[in-house]
Amino acid sequence: MITSISTQIQLAARPVGWPRPNDFATVQIELGELAPGQIRVVNEFISVDPYMRGRMSAAKSYSAPFGLGETMTGGAIGRVVESASDAFPVGSVVLHQFGWRDVVQEDAAGFKVVPEIPGAPLSLYLGILGMTGLTGYVGLTAVANMVPGDTVFISGAAGAVGTAAGQIARLLGAGRVIGSAGTDEKVALLTEKYGYDAAFNYKSGPVREQLAAAAPEGIDVFFDNVGGEHLEAALDVFNPGGRAALCGAIAGYNSTERKVGPDNMVNMITRGLSLKGFTLGSYLDLAPEFNEHMTAWFTAGKIAYDETVVDGIGNAVDALLSMMQGANTGKMVVRTAVMADVIR
Amino acid sequence: MITSISTQIQLAARPVGWPRPNDFATVQIELGELAPGQIRVVNEFISVDPYMRGRMSAAKSYSAPFGLGETMTGGAIGRVVESASDAFPVGSVVLHQFGWRDVVQEDAAGFKVVPEIPGAPLSLYLGILGMTGLTGYVGLTAVANMVPGDTVFISGAAGAVGTAAGQIARLLGAGRVIGSAGTDEKVALLTEKYGYDAAFNYKSGPVREQLAAAAPEGIDVFFDNVGGEHLEAALDVFNPGGRAALCGAIAGYNSTERKVGPDNMVNMITRGLSLKGFTLGSYLDLAPEFNEHMTAWFTAGKIAYDETVVDGIGNAVDALLSMMQGANTGKMVVRTAVMADVIR
Repeated sequence: MITSISTQIQLAARPVGWPRPNDFATVQIELGELAPGQIRVVNEFISVDPYMRGRMSAAKSYSAPFGLGETMTGGAIGRVVESASDAFPVGSVVLHQFGWRDVVQEDAAGFKVVPEIPGAPLSLYLGILGMTGLTGYVGLTAVANMVPGDTVFISGAAGAVGTAAGQIARLLGAGRVIGSAGTDEKVALLTEKYGYDAAFNYKSGPVREQLAAAAPEGIDVFFDNVGGEHLEAALDVFNPGGRAALCGAIAGYNSTERKVGPDNMVNMITRGLSLKGFTLGSYLDLAPEFNEHMTAWFTAGKIAYDETVVDGIGNAVDALLSMMQGANTGKMVVRTAVMADVIR
Repeated sequence: MITSISTQIQLAARPVGWPRPNDFATVQIELGELAPGQIRVVNEFISVDPYMRGRMSAAKSYSAPFGLGETMTGGAIGRVVESASDAFPVGSVVLHQFGWRDVVQEDAAGFKVVPEIPGAPLSLYLGILGMTGLTGYVGLTAVANMVPGDTVFISGAAGAVGTAAGQIARLLGAGRVIGSAGTDEKVALLTEKYGYDAAFNYKSGPVREQLAAAAPEGIDVFFDNVGGEHLEAALDVFNPGGRAALCGAIAGYNSTERKVGPDNMVNMITRGLSLKGFTLGSYLDLAPEFNEHMTAWFTAGKIAYDETVVDGIGNAVDALLSMMQGANTGKMVVRTAVMADVIR
């Protein structure tokens, strides 16, 4: 592989409804000589995440929309192949947000050396050991104020954040943990591999009825990755003082129809409930605390995980779409296939 | 007046939709001799409040439903006319929750002596100096975490809680205060008497458009007494980190149709918003703090108020209904007309 050419995926048009291949363009950029302080990194994995759909729209949001004609940004992990920075010797493993490109060359300030946990595959730093795990941790603790003994319901529980959140809830002392997922296979995984007490397939019947059956004594915490019907169902069964962390609403991200909200908002008043939306950016100060917990849990063998790996940066768009359709179990990552040739 | 006969309004049937006269019954009960520790109180004012509609239904709620065939409970204020308790000499002014009756005879433990503020009409202790004012204070402070400089939007701002909340927001340092009300007269009152910076009539156009026009720089806090369209409009214009205290949803209390929730719940995630429902019962520990503030504000002449007074306990049901239809400005109370004859 010639690392002086960077293949990058750019946003070419703002999608209406589901993104289509024409909304993206692949470009090849010739990288110049390193400027002082720069490093060149060959990516091993790039992350595709639900929040990226939001950033494709021009609407006001928590982070600036992706620019048209600009390379899609997002989490990625790779190795330094050339360096003009003493802090990043060649061979260092680094995390960054430069996103959908196989080779990145930027000022070293944009990268972070990964403190590797022995035995952990690199891709996990984009997932349960990284932002995804932190999202689950933050949602349960700082946003939903989970306390030991709480009954916790997690929607989209077999997804990247869901698999993290379910395990973290248990490790933090949740009483009963309930999850929903979109296939019977995922549902089985939740109870068999991830230690859920109850799980149901949200495509096989009304969420309201299934959740009520799975939570006969109500729920205290709701970690929502899906939105829509799930939120309505949770509002039905919340115990007084219940708290929801709204992390995702993937059900509606690609909808062009009016998204109708819950019909039972009044329960919020009568039961003293709280709903709190969040994005990770406001809670990054919890990263050290999370890292400490997660390193201990992972090292002790207490963390299970699944990954869905798609090969080739050229398949990044397909990976994103299939992830939003629920094709993944656990974190979806794209492996930039060239890595093996260059580095290993 | 013979104070040994108590006229009481009881719930006779659970209303479907708007309560009707047949849902209530008036009974007269002969009171016996005082037992040791009891007092007999002639009510001067009884309170009618939106939350009472919720308690007429059998549904699970924060407080037990009113019992069928039992006298409607709720706030009331009156004077002791007979006493078998040293702590409550004849003539004491007392607050209690025995509700819709002209004369009440119960154990003294159910009553509280009112620490009268000079110049304050007794009815205000059912309103801005009492639970109503405390509701506004709690919603802004403990529920919505208002901070000085916040832009605050209050729906149903000319109602009992609304007129209290608007003034308290200002006195606690809110930047801009915006209100909605259901008639042009009330809207004028908000800006002319209650110091609102902007106000609009929610019946004269779409709430979304009117709120967006009144809040060009967004809102930070939303104190909701109305629900429905108002919540949707607030979610549109919330600044990042915005917080709502959901106090009432009077728009839907008497509806028998499906109440469709906001179509823009996803803003909660992208802007990191929180919605928190509350009822006063969970925040009664803030009463001393509120009383201290409110006594100082009232004594300094900083508190404006309106009251809508209906005469005669026989009109209590009509008062409740007309209050829920917006006929009141400020607190709605029922004056038990006999008082003047007996006490003054």
